[in-house]
Amino acid sequence: MAKNKSMEFKKKKLSNGLAIIGEVNKSAKSAAVGFFVKTGSRDESKQINGVSHFLEHMLFKGTERLNAFQVNEAFDRTGAQFNAGTGEENTVFYAAVLPEYLVEVTGLWIELMRSALRDEDFNVEKNVIKEEIAMYKDLPSYDVMDRCKSLHFDGHPCGNSVLGSKESIDNLTAEQMRDYFANRYAPNNMVLAVAGNFDWDQICSIVEVPCGKWQKQPADRKLEHCLGSKKKKRVEKSNLAREHICLMSPGVSAQDPRRFAASLLGVIVGDDVGSRFFWELVDKALAEVATMQFGPMDGTGAFCSYIRCSSENVSKVLDTIRGIFRSLSESGVTEDELTKAKNKILSALVIKNELPMGRLVDLGSNWIYLEQYRTIEDDISAVKAVTVDDVHSLIEQFNPGDFTQFSIGPAQSN
Amino acid sequence: MAKNKSMEFKKKKLSNGLAIIGEVNKSAKSAAVGFFVKTGSRDESKQINGVSHFLEHMLFKGTERLNAFQVNEAFDRTGAQFNAGTGEENTVFYAAVLPEYLVEVTGLWIELMRSALRDEDFNVEKNVIKEEIAMYKDLPSYDVMDRCKSLHFDGHPCGNSVLGSKESIDNLTAEQMRDYFANRYAPNNMVLAVAGNFDWDQICSIVEVPCGKWQKQPADRKLEHCLGSKKKKRVEKSNLAREHICLMSPGVSAQDPRRFAASLLGVIVGDDVGSRFFWELVDKALAEVATMQFGPMDGTGAFCSYIRCSSENVSKVLDTIRGIFRSLSESGVTEDELTKAKNKILSALVIKNELPMGRLVDLGSNWIYLEQYRTIEDDISAVKAVTVDDVHSLIEQFNPGDFTQFSIGPAQSN
Repeated sequence: MAKNKSMEFKKKKLSNGLAIIGEVNKSAKSAAVGFFVKTGSRDESKQINGVSHFLEHMLFKGTERLNAFQVNEAFDRTGAQFNAGTGEENTVFYAAVLPEYLVEVTGLWIELMRSALRDEDFNVEKNVIKEEIAMYKDLPSYDVMDRCKSLHFDGHPCGNSVLGSKESIDNLTAEQMRDYFANRYAPNNMVLAVAGNFDWDQICSIVEVPCGKWQKQPADRKLEHCLGSKKKKRVEKSNLAREHICLMSPGVSAQDPRRFAASLLGVIVGDDVGSRFFWELVDKALAEVATMQFGPMDGTGAFCSYIRCSSENVSKVLDTIRGIFRSLSESGVTEDELTKAKNKILSALVIKNELPMGRLVDLGSNWIYLEQYRTIEDDISAVKAVTVDDVHSLIEQFNPGDFTQFSIGPAQSN
Repeated sequence: MAKNKSMEFKKKKLSNGLAIIGEVNKSAKSAAVGFFVKTGSRDESKQINGVSHFLEHMLFKGTERLNAFQVNEAFDRTGAQFNAGTGEENTVFYAAVLPEYLVEVTGLWIELMRSALRDEDFNVEKNVIKEEIAMYKDLPSYDVMDRCKSLHFDGHPCGNSVLGSKESIDNLTAEQMRDYFANRYAPNNMVLAVAGNFDWDQICSIVEVPCGKWQKQPADRKLEHCLGSKKKKRVEKSNLAREHICLMSPGVSAQDPRRFAASLLGVIVGDDVGSRFFWELVDKALAEVATMQFGPMDGTGAFCSYIRCSSENVSKVLDTIRGIFRSLSESGVTEDELTKAKNKILSALVIKNELPMGRLVDLGSNWIYLEQYRTIEDDISAVKAVTVDDVHSLIEQFNPGDFTQFSIGPAQSN
């Protein structure tokens, strides 16, 4: 009987290539549904940079049948907690609802995935996008990471800005967006994922007819590993009180089994608390913030650190960081550090996946990157299996101390 | 068999008054534990304003046995997601962990609840607190609400600032903090709550001995309902680009069965999207943000709105708000609005409570305010039972259009 299985995985592929996947958990009290579109800023040319993010906004502006007001009203009726996000690689639309509203909200997402993309809406929204670009430009922590990414990937499309620039958005036409949409929001480039308490057959029955009409397209992506430029650059901004530093170095891809070891290395070096960065930089009051994270990507990957400190401390901070990476290369990590990092990653993993909304993200991501169903237990085992030696060989191969560096800070007084 | 019950409630009171409560959910994959201390800024005199929040920080600085470094290390070992927070009425310390680390992290919290409160740590932390005060002073959205609260409660202790002022913190002594601690962190003024997948007997066995030694104290709180001053005040800040407006009006208490109707009214009037404020202020581009929320408190309660707009739009915004409240008084809310608000509150409630960490908060709060165990189903039924008439009589009795108003904005040009 299904009752005794707490989780059941289901999948189906429509003839146009749309993947529908679901993990049924009858003991959950809510359900979550999302479209994962395998497209983002890395799939854009310079001319249309920012189109993925702009398009994500446009999908809420209405369809042939609904205007923006009615889209809003329709979500409102279901009480959904819903949102969307655009990154370098994916655009994701998701909602969590009480089980009785799942069919309604899934139907709404299906409808929105074939947006009207009207010229009038495009022109109005262009200003919203430009305001968002201006706002983020004013956030040095965001700006420094965006610019470091571009310096690190140095021509590789993973360095493209997600938001685009004022110029690229000014020049973008509604026609270009519609072309991009037709190519990238093709069913064979999308996954519909469902998690939590729901009826698989019922969901399939409402998905198949409308989504079955969507046209297959040759939506592909250029995959190339990138070792990074290792360049160094600093820019000054007169209104800043603090130095913002971003460091990037290469890592393994989202498909690489070593991604678990890489995440653990990120936690050991740069978790918010208890990491090497924490004890040597934050606890010693050299830096206010100092974190490092591993970001797996499609066919490539990177470690990214962010540090904020006073101008006076910059050289001490960089010396300390070089010291941390040197000691990692020479002596690796300890068993104790690895155990603590595993506990952190495992508790975060389990807690996140306990909620259908959190589970949805892992379910969809694993399908997008691996076309693979992984249970939470699969991931737990993979994390537990990482050894100190696995982390050592990662450090040896990728040498995180050899990094690209971008800084934004106040004018220097000397 | 316990297997068939998805949730089981347990409680115990030690002879010194400490309440231990737990909701066991064997199908959860994590567990959460927290101390709820019934103390906050409303329990402070002017002289020691800010001591509750400062004390919350101090609890992480160590015990007779552990220094701050070791406290951090101890959390790290468990991989816990942990935090603490101080408000007007409660100070809460909580952690979510994998079930196998619950005993360890509970033991750690118990130990921290009898902090060393060392003079050296107190003096160092004082600067951290003053920096936090300065930082929040620079956030107009926070500052305006803090000052409106003080204007509204006008001498009633609920108007006390949570952080305190630079002056009150400067003058605070470690001795005053230790006195406050001894009175307010008394076992009879605290609840230890546990939620998720755990063994009740095991938790009791590690709690009883150490917590049983804590001394009972006459920790009480003055309860008085407050109808608010209805005063209006505006201050100018030269560096601001926008007007920040906070409105407050009285509401029912956390003990009042009408609190569900009051929350629904808050959502109808001022939810982020789809509310009256949204359609008449945000969608029409008169304001950038316009929200209203109901905040139930111990023996009293308040509705609180926050609006951000350009200087030019201020009078139009206030006219519109008066119009919204007038129409509420004259015609009440519609069935359709109430249904949508219920769906929103119910989905947020269910989704939040699905996670042991979220469940813990409701479990502890219900015990602190009501000494009552309420299942999620109890709250769902209470929300569903609210009628349009219930909302009408709330509006009639509390008249949210008659509000206290505090604004912070740029210098006016006329």
